[in-house]
Amino acid sequence: MPETAYPRETTALLFVDPYNDFLSEGGKIYPRIKPIADEVGLLDNLRQLDGAIRAAGIQVVIVPHRRWEPGDYETWDHFNPSQRSIMQRHSFARGEWGGEWHPDFAPKLGDLVAHEHWGQSGFANTDLDFLLKQKGIAHVIVVGLLANTCIESTARYAMELGYHVTLVRDATAALTQEMMHAAHDLNGPTFAHSILTTVEVIAALPTTSRSKEIVQ
Amino acid sequence: MPETAYPRETTALLFVDPYNDFLSEGGKIYPRIKPIADEVGLLDNLRQLDGAIRAAGIQVVIVPHRRWEPGDYETWDHFNPSQRSIMQRHSFARGEWGGEWHPDFAPKLGDLVAHEHWGQSGFANTDLDFLLKQKGIAHVIVVGLLANTCIESTARYAMELGYHVTLVRDATAALTQEMMHAAHDLNGPTFAHSILTTVEVIAALPTTSRSKEIVQ
Amino acid sequence: MPETAYPRETTALLFVDPYNDFLSEGGKIYPRIKPIADEVGLLDNLRQLDGAIRAAGIQVVIVPHRRWEPGDYETWDHFNPSQRSIMQRHSFARGEWGGEWHPDFAPKLGDLVAHEHWGQSGFANTDLDFLLKQKGIAHVIVVGLLANTCIESTARYAMELGYHVTLVRDATAALTQEMMHAAHDLNGPTFAHSILTTVEVIAALPTTSRSKEIVQ
Amino acid sequence: MPETAYPRETTALLFVDPYNDFLSEGGKIYPRIKPIADEVGLLDNLRQLDGAIRAAGIQVVIVPHRRWEPGDYETWDHFNPSQRSIMQRHSFARGEWGGEWHPDFAPKLGDLVAHEHWGQSGFANTDLDFLLKQKGIAHVIVVGLLANTCIESTARYAMELGYHVTLVRDATAALTQEMMHAAHDLNGPTFAHSILTTVEVIAALPTTSRSKEIVQ
Repeated sequence: MPETAYPRETTALLFVDPYNDFLSEGGKIYPRIKPIADEVGLLDNLRQLDGAIRAAGIQVVIVPHRRWEPGDYETWDHFNPSQRSIMQRHSFARGEWGGEWHPDFAPKLGDLVAHEHWGQSGFANTDLDFLLKQKGIAHVIVVGLLANTCIESTARYAMELGYHVTLVRDATAALTQEMMHAAHDLNGPTFAHSILTTVEVIAALPTTSRSKEIVQ
Repeated sequence: MPETAYPRETTALLFVDPYNDFLSEGGKIYPRIKPIADEVGLLDNLRQLDGAIRAAGIQVVIVPHRRWEPGDYETWDHFNPSQRSIMQRHSFARGEWGGEWHPDFAPKLGDLVAHEHWGQSGFANTDLDFLLKQKGIAHVIVVGLLANTCIESTARYAMELGYHVTLVRDATAALTQEMMHAAHDLNGPTFAHSILTTVEVIAALPTTSRSKEIVQ
Repeated sequence: MPETAYPRETTALLFVDPYNDFLSEGGKIYPRIKPIADEVGLLDNLRQLDGAIRAAGIQVVIVPHRRWEPGDYETWDHFNPSQRSIMQRHSFARGEWGGEWHPDFAPKLGDLVAHEHWGQSGFANTDLDFLLKQKGIAHVIVVGLLANTCIESTARYAMELGYHVTLVRDATAALTQEMMHAAHDLNGPTFAHSILTTVEVIAALPTTSRSKEIVQ
Repeated sequence: MPETAYPRETTALLFVDPYNDFLSEGGKIYPRIKPIADEVGLLDNLRQLDGAIRAAGIQVVIVPHRRWEPGDYETWDHFNPSQRSIMQRHSFARGEWGGEWHPDFAPKLGDLVAHEHWGQSGFANTDLDFLLKQKGIAHVIVVGLLANTCIESTARYAMELGYHVTLVRDATAALTQEMMHAAHDLNGPTFAHSILTTVEVIAALPTTSRSKEIVQ
């Protein structure tokens, strides 16, 4: 049973990198996460969670990775292995289908969209903390991809910034099963305040929706 | 063979949490890391690396965790599981032996000592980035404890802040072998620029010491 | 008339640099601010405001400048003119009377004390934002010294971090009258949400004190 | 005579807010800064400085304010007076001429363009620090608009982040003469490392251009 309550006015869903390249058939990275995505029921869980969050009147925030552009990283003093991979794959290329939102998870009216992040943490070098402050958010539920990279770094930063942090073990995926295990059983328990399933999060949401005057 | 050169003027060793509670017989956490510390040769490696770094004239920076004080965390809106554990154990208690530096790794003249960090990252809520900037540091070698918590968060932050990041797989430890595996084989390769052994780092250091006028 | 309400649970008083060197007869910098401090009634206003804030059950946060230590700044790549001045004067020297709290404004039980700041902003390179987040603070009232340096930088940062910011024009001082004018009439109105007098702030505070269980 | 050297490899020009609304005849804010812009020779100085910086092979970084979009700020818990003004004027509106680059100062190949900033500081809630780190920048020369708001906050942040900071007193403007005086004679000297004229900066630049292999 989840112990945490998620107050409507102080909770946000952080949806990290809902791009076609990650979440859609034909996406550049989708085949590499598909085994685990299928196993945990990722797409269905994201749809149910997204729907329940919106029905509860809770703020949705899209937390997007930098969309690759020609020249990216090439003149940097030092890019890391993930960035080298993006340079080779052109992941989330700006102006291409892979860098567009998965159609089920595109931002809707009232959603916030943070600056694109260059690395793994949606907070680093972006306005995400600022946008959350302007809404009085204190609790973040972090979902999307990948469990041990962008989700984990965003969640580690959220903790350091003073937020209450929830991970959702079946609303994310990774390249391997042991990466999922590392994210949720080894590392997550050292920094996250709660690690739940989609069903458990939905059960913990407030049951009546807030006034629509703000989100419309 | 390491590909990275470590320029004397732009490299720093970040030594995270060199407290008795972590590194000394009788320390509160030492028994829990001792199996892996012994296996990788942690203490000897830290001594050799520390010596080689200083002989090369490279900047040493101590990156200390918050020393526990009475009242810590108790009135916070939400502390995380690691902080709950610290509240119970009184880890690194200020004014007690456990919160003193391991005698081999106490700061020496010319070392920098960052603000104490509340969470896992030595950069979060501290002056570490600022101190490194004032020395023109671009490369950080991150050692100390624990591999998958403070070391990993400090290294993830260093990458997001634009530093070149090196992990040293036998100059750290963790509670379990699979946590070491997660830190160095699953997660580290996604954000760190180089993951080496102590011997490899020492081999890559510049061979002649810089002018002593600064460090003395 | 102040338009702003200061909710007890989400407001904090940020008291910047309440050192003897700034606020006490015999302090190193006090003679330079005394003309304006006397003119605005600084000490009396700080006492009244501090008392009213505590009576209202509002969180007090001490925001201290780096206490000078031998060697400070000397090996930095570039210190600024204020830091050069501190090197010469040994302002707020650690272990000396000038670096001790003014006796009326020393931290009391339940107060927070942020990390010391190296520059002008109490948020830069410190844990101030984090401490405020752990208390759910959204409104900050910034008082202390100097109006156009540490107070202004702390207040500019608070705005960028998403806080509601109040300046108090007679609970601060500066070296010259035109610096006060710049802080409150030229610059403050571009970033602060409210610029009040001590009397106006006190009139806007909640009238009944919160439960004492937290602050005791 | 300027004492500062500006090494080609570690210096960047930060050009803040080069929008038509600020710098072009017909811009929404231009009429309000025109008296001082004309007096100091702003446009000519910016052109000469920009040309000399590029001829010297020094990195140019565009530091843009948030372009106004419908809905901006309206649902925030608290916007500040400057943001209220932008809501009313639609300053730098996205998709309109006022929010386009002044034609002489649009980004060129090899320039960096930071995330748009919501407040006054080009560093707050953006990737500016990160981009500078990836180029090894240690010295920033901050020009553009307005002297006492975005330029001053960007420069105050740069100092807190550990950069060497230069202000250029005739490569900026403000609404009033006393705001210019506050920026350059009252406040700037407390945080900036150097306050020069355009002619003095140009005289201090390195005289031969760097290899073009990086910037092309």
